[in-house]
Amino acid sequence: AHEFDGTHEDAEKGEYRHYMQKEIFEQPAAIQKTLEDRIDSPADLIKAFGEKAPAIFDQVKTVQIVACGTSYHAGMVARYWLEDIAGIPCQVEVASEFRYRKHVVPEGTLFVTISQSGETADTLAALRDTQSPNYVGRLAICNVDSSSLVRESELVFLTKAGPEIGVASTKAFTTQLAGLLMMVLALGRQKGLADSEIEKVLAEMRQLPNLIEQAASLDKPIEKLSEHFVEKHHALFLGRGVQFPVALEGALKLKEISYIHAEAYAAGELKHGPLALVDSDMPVVSVAPNDELLEKLKSNLQEVRARGGELYVFADKNAHVKEGEGIHVLNMPAVPETIAPIVYTVPLQLLSYHVAVLRGTDVDQPRNLAKSVTVE
Amino acid sequence: AHEFDGTHEDAEKGEYRHYMQKEIFEQPAAIQKTLEDRIDSPADLIKAFGEKAPAIFDQVKTVQIVACGTSYHAGMVARYWLEDIAGIPCQVEVASEFRYRKHVVPEGTLFVTISQSGETADTLAALRDTQSPNYVGRLAICNVDSSSLVRESELVFLTKAGPEIGVASTKAFTTQLAGLLMMVLALGRQKGLADSEIEKVLAEMRQLPNLIEQAASLDKPIEKLSEHFVEKHHALFLGRGVQFPVALEGALKLKEISYIHAEAYAAGELKHGPLALVDSDMPVVSVAPNDELLEKLKSNLQEVRARGGELYVFADKNAHVKEGEGIHVLNMPAVPETIAPIVYTVPLQLLSYHVAVLRGTDVDQPRNLAKSVTVE
Repeated sequence: AHEFDGTHEDAEKGEYRHYMQKEIFEQPAAIQKTLEDRIDSPADLIKAFGEKAPAIFDQVKTVQIVACGTSYHAGMVARYWLEDIAGIPCQVEVASEFRYRKHVVPEGTLFVTISQSGETADTLAALRDTQSPNYVGRLAICNVDSSSLVRESELVFLTKAGPEIGVASTKAFTTQLAGLLMMVLALGRQKGLADSEIEKVLAEMRQLPNLIEQAASLDKPIEKLSEHFVEKHHALFLGRGVQFPVALEGALKLKEISYIHAEAYAAGELKHGPLALVDSDMPVVSVAPNDELLEKLKSNLQEVRARGGELYVFADKNAHVKEGEGIHVLNMPAVPETIAPIVYTVPLQLLSYHVAVLRGTDVDQPRNLAKSVTVE
Repeated sequence: AHEFDGTHEDAEKGEYRHYMQKEIFEQPAAIQKTLEDRIDSPADLIKAFGEKAPAIFDQVKTVQIVACGTSYHAGMVARYWLEDIAGIPCQVEVASEFRYRKHVVPEGTLFVTISQSGETADTLAALRDTQSPNYVGRLAICNVDSSSLVRESELVFLTKAGPEIGVASTKAFTTQLAGLLMMVLALGRQKGLADSEIEKVLAEMRQLPNLIEQAASLDKPIEKLSEHFVEKHHALFLGRGVQFPVALEGALKLKEISYIHAEAYAAGELKHGPLALVDSDMPVVSVAPNDELLEKLKSNLQEVRARGGELYVFADKNAHVKEGEGIHVLNMPAVPETIAPIVYTVPLQLLSYHVAVLRGTDVDQPRNLAKSVTVE
């Protein structure tokens, strides 16, 4: 640990060089705090959403999630969970699109907003525009208790990430995911999801602080890997299923703080266009947990390799993705499939962090960006 | 016009240097043929979808569109139209994601596939997996009469684009859009959309061949503009609302045939990350028809300009977007808002075509890509 030199800024950053770095490593504690006393039993889950939650959740037939940027990616993960685990249909849309188009509101819609600050202009405006009687309630997933989003929503789930200073969101995102998974289970329970099923996911969620810590302990090998990206101008991130939004978030992080043009694709779309971009100058990053889509993803990766693309795979140690010429594998701890998107986010955060540090950018305050987008 | 030198290949390409170029200029005729005898009156519209269409369309409460690549972008445009014009909720998803996740099928769902060839592997597999009784019917929007997709769907809309040889889809896309707009009107009519409203859109659609010809006549100024892109490695495409998928399609075209890393964003998401990428090396292309979102888009464009980004705007001549230092404006004919996405696609096709020609790539057979993705 580094020594404290007495200045205010260093006191806040502690042993860390940047706020973003500190916030990445705070994630086990932030998730712990967000879940503490809230996931003891299936019946308890709903309490974290406010007094009106039982009456409102009972009426929910479908969920509309609206958010921007990183929070939008959290919403995308939640959609996969909601339809898979709870059997509840879900739509997710970026706020600036949703609010300016004429959209149909199905009966029994729960309107869910996600925002770290609770002041994101487009998200707030979308919330203020939910007059349709087909909305049964408005739920805010938010990190700031006193925010407009919280004040103006009937239901609130507060993430307890603590203040997030780095412009590129890290712990706010993973705690949003934890809250959204709780929402999925609580809504599922009202729709008849068995407590035994819920208990199984809760047991996995209790492992989150530990698994995130294990993922974060890969810091040194990831730092080493990041050297491969310093001179690059592009990167392609691939994922499938619930890991597709994780790929999107990984690409966004790299964009935001390293200014490398990173773009994410659902791996199955590779052949429909982006494969034309792949050559030795385009590193391809892939998230490959040990789930049923792994074989599909392996075949996508072969396509990339066959075109001379350099591959960086974050894979479950049991997935047997082999290191080789042009294939770099970073082995992740074994993670249950449901919570995998939360855990796999961490190495991608670390990758973008280290690439940015090596490139010498202003990690905590990247050019052109503000922490909260409170104007349109 | 160039002289015919007697070889078979030139006979097919005629006066054109590439199939893609020929296919871009064939669009007025392809749209004409696709719409001919089909849009004479609101009551006639449904006939193009097959005998079973009246009985099936009557039961439709919601629409699920599944497609890949360019066809997926056509589906995204249709979603904006469906909710706005017909008031019917719609979801769109890439086939490789849809088929591998557990998804909820709402009662009364029309399952719509879009594919030029009708043999796209993931789309076909998704179609074959529609056992749920909540599907009221399966509609294929397709360019090949004898394809698997057509044979295995109860309802079919045949685009009459003729053979498309260039790997990068052009006339298949715009004729798909024409067919999808007909679908929106036909479904809307079953749900009570007034014939006067439908007639208004039909009158606009009858202008399509002429308006597309006007857009294509901008070929020379676009060729001139394309010189600005030859040395670039990146490009950002921005659009809002129904033009967001047009921006996505414009970026995909440039990727596919020029190998420039082009990426599209919903303009409102700019501040949530991609703005960090914008500097003088990142040209920004924007689609700005003269609709209600223009003022918003103008403010997004100012942000880009303030960061040193070079701007290329395709704008309605009545939109009063001013040329200036670093702002290049290409004036488009005045286009009614509903059909604008079809017309605005054309200059973006021409832009990618000319950039690719200048870069000396194999325009009709770009590296790594196949015309129809018949394997997963």
